This record gives sequence, structure tokens and C-alpha cells, in this order.
Amino acid sequence: MNAEPVSRRARPAKAPLSRDVIVRTGLEVLDREGLDALTMRRVAQVLDTGAASLYVYVENRDDLMAAMLDEALGRVALPTDGSWQEQLQTLVANSIDAMSRHEGLALVALGGIPTGLNALLVMDRMLTIFKEGGVDDTTAAWAVDLLYLHITAAGAEQAAYNTRKLTPAEHIAEVRRRYAELPADRYPMVTTMGDALFSAGDRDRWAIQVLVNGILATAAHPVP
Amino acid sequence: MNAEPVSRRARPAKAPLSRDVIVRTGLEVLDREGLDALTMRRVAQVLDTGAASLYVYVENRDDLMAAMLDEALGRVALPTDGSWQEQLQTLVANSIDAMSRHEGLALVALGGIPTGLNALLVMDRMLTIFKEGGVDDTTAAWAVDLLYLHITAAGAEQAAYNTRKLTPAEHIAEVRRRYAELPADRYPMVTTMGDALFSAGDRDRWAIQVLVNGILATAAHPVP
Repeated sequence: MNAEPVSRRARPAKAPLSRDVIVRTGLEVLDREGLDALTMRRVAQVLDTGAASLYVYVENRDDLMAAMLDEALGRVALPTDGSWQEQLQTLVANSIDAMSRHEGLALVALGGIPTGLNALLVMDRMLTIFKEGGVDDTTAAWAVDLLYLHITAAGAEQAAYNTRKLTPAEHIAEVRRRYAELPADRYPMVTTMGDALFSAGDRDRWAIQVLVNGILATAAHPVP
Repeated sequence: MNAEPVSRRARPAKAPLSRDVIVRTGLEVLDREGLDALTMRRVAQVLDTGAASLYVYVENRDDLMAAMLDEALGRVALPTDGSWQEQLQTLVANSIDAMSRHEGLALVALGGIPTGLNALLVMDRMLTIFKEGGVDDTTAAWAVDLLYLHITAAGAEQAAYNTRKLTPAEHIAEVRRRYAELPADRYPMVTTMGDALFSAGDRDRWAIQVLVNGILATAAHPVP
């Protein structure tokens, strides 16, 4: 070991702290080390500083997670080509994809009205697309609410699959075995519909189409 | 204080331990003391036993939560009256309601294929209703998947509202203020559509109608 004191100047310069730097480092820690490892302390350690310095920019872990979610949504590609329905479907699919890439982030969005600047950009774009499609304002507003709920749920579901130990095929085989063993008199459908229940196909895309078709078929009726 | 030793016989008899008793006690602890208080240790304490005794019946806290979720779903009233579409809507609404009554339970269901005996009863009933409505097997199977995802997400959202400090009206007022302050050039819709975005009405019922109408309009195409 070198006992000689190293001058501060000889060390590489630390990046100056900012909310942005902390949020991006939080995402790196989450993706590399998982949700349980994501603490203010660990993020501070990676940034070679003390946790107390972080609290100047970030309120607490919840605030950090919310900012990380919005950072992830800032990476959603906004569609420009295709019919309004195609654009809407692509935007929803891209948003689900962005949320599912980081363990636990989609859950942060669940149950809250979106307030992040990037979440609101996605929402604003959805409203624009509905307007182009001739959907009335109230139905468009309620629709964005429902689509955002679906995005968070599908994102969380996808993220949960990504962190599961079993492969999807193994998981399905296990559940299918379980369904087949149920008493047929009590579960007449579940025990006999295995082929349909576990049929492969683009269910994610189908789900988005269901939502769009359903929105077009169902006008909102606000209380006056 | 009475220093005289009390005979074991003088104490009220303890209910014998079983998985059922543990699960119902878990729900009581959750509802009375909140999600953070729900530990194996606390449930054991309420049952006047040691945590080690619980592990004979319940694998761990995750297993307990999954069993509590299924217990909650066992309280869902299965509809008997009305057209098949009305029955389906009522069943979905009742399931959301059951999930939303207990903090954090809906999140347990998110991202997993349902395997609980009561969850599967609800699912079986949905499949029966779709069959009565003439929906083909694959579309019905995919639909139940999508409806279960919506049930868990809407249940989690509702539960989150129930445990929030602000009232819904206060929360909405705060968010609405925030939307109005955004730059109008970047957020042309969000800044101007406040009346529609925050319009009151039965959005939950509307969302279920959207899903049912969308399912009827969108046949599933499984990969052969």
C-alpha cells in the first residue's frame, strides 16, 4: 500500500451533483443491482458522496423512484407515422415497454394521477391523437386515464415476468398442470379449456386493440 | 398486580392453529394496522403463539399474502341475474371491489397467472358467461386474462386512494393546479382540457364497459 497522501487534485474530478445525475444513477443501480438494493445510501455510495448530499436534490426514496419513472418515460419514442389508431397503439405499446424495462418502476405509477413532465408529454400526445380521430374531449380524457392504468399494469406484469426465475414456458407448464388437477365439477371451464387458456399469440397487441375498439364504441357520460 | 400464578386451565382456550385461522388473522392485522405492520411475527403475536408455529402452515409472508388475496376473492358475490353482459360487468366490478378493500393485496395478483382456488372460481365463472354470450374460446380466454389484469390494477388504484392522506377532491385540485401551470406550447392538450380531464362520472363502470365492448369487437388470433 502506498502510504503517501494522494492530493485531492490527483483524483478524477467528481461529476457535480444534480437531480438529473442522481436520477440516472438511481436507474443504473436499479437495473444492475435490483429493487432491494436501491437505497439513497447506495446511490450516494456510487456517486462517491454521502446520503445527506442527495437530500438537497431528492426528497426521499419515493421521490427518487417517481423521478426515475419519469426519466424512463422520457425515453418513449413518440410515433409520427400511420393512421391515428396505429399511432395510438404504438404509443401505448412503447410506453408499456419503457415501464417494463426497470423492476418495480411501473408500480410507482399505479394509482396516481400522472404528474411527471414526461408522463404528461405522453398523455398530451394521446389526447392530440384522439382529437385527430374525432373522439370527443370527455371520452378522450377518460380514455387516457384507462390507457395509463393499462400501461402501468401491463408494464408491471411484464417486469415481473422479466425478474422471475422460471422461464415463461416453465411457468405456463406448471400452471397448466395445476389447472388440469382441479375438480372438474367446480371448475368446468378452467379444467377443459387449457388449449384456449394457454394459446400463444400476440396477446399484448390484442389487448391494446381491445381498448382502442372499446373506447371508440363507448362514449363517456360525465355527470353534468 | 396479582402475584399468584394463574393456572393454564384458567386462561381462555386458544383456537387451534390452521392455515385458515392464520390467513383470516393476517387479513385482520392488515386491515387494522396496515401493510407495514403485517409480518409473520405480528400475526403470531395476535394468535398468541411463536412465528415458528406459523411456518408449519404458511411458507413465508409472500405465501401468506397470496392466501389472503384468495380469501378476499372468496368473498366476491357471483352474479346470477341479468344478461350475460350485465353479469360480466357486475362480476368484474365486484372483484375490483374485493381487491381494493385491503391495502397492498391487489399488487400480489399483478403479474401472475391466477392459481388461487377462489381466483379460479371467478375466472371459471367469467369463462362460463362468455360461453353463454357466444364468444369463441380463444377470445374468451384472452379476455379473462385482460380482465384479471384490469381487476388487479383498478383494485390497486382504488386501494391506493383509500390509504392516501388527501381526499380525492383535494388531490384533484392539486393536480389540476399543476396541469394549468405547465407551458402551453409543450402541453397544448393538458393545459386546456382541464374540464374534460377532471370531469366527474362513473369512470369505473365506463372502463368495464369499454373492455367488454372492445372484447366483443376484437377476435383473438392465436398463432396456430
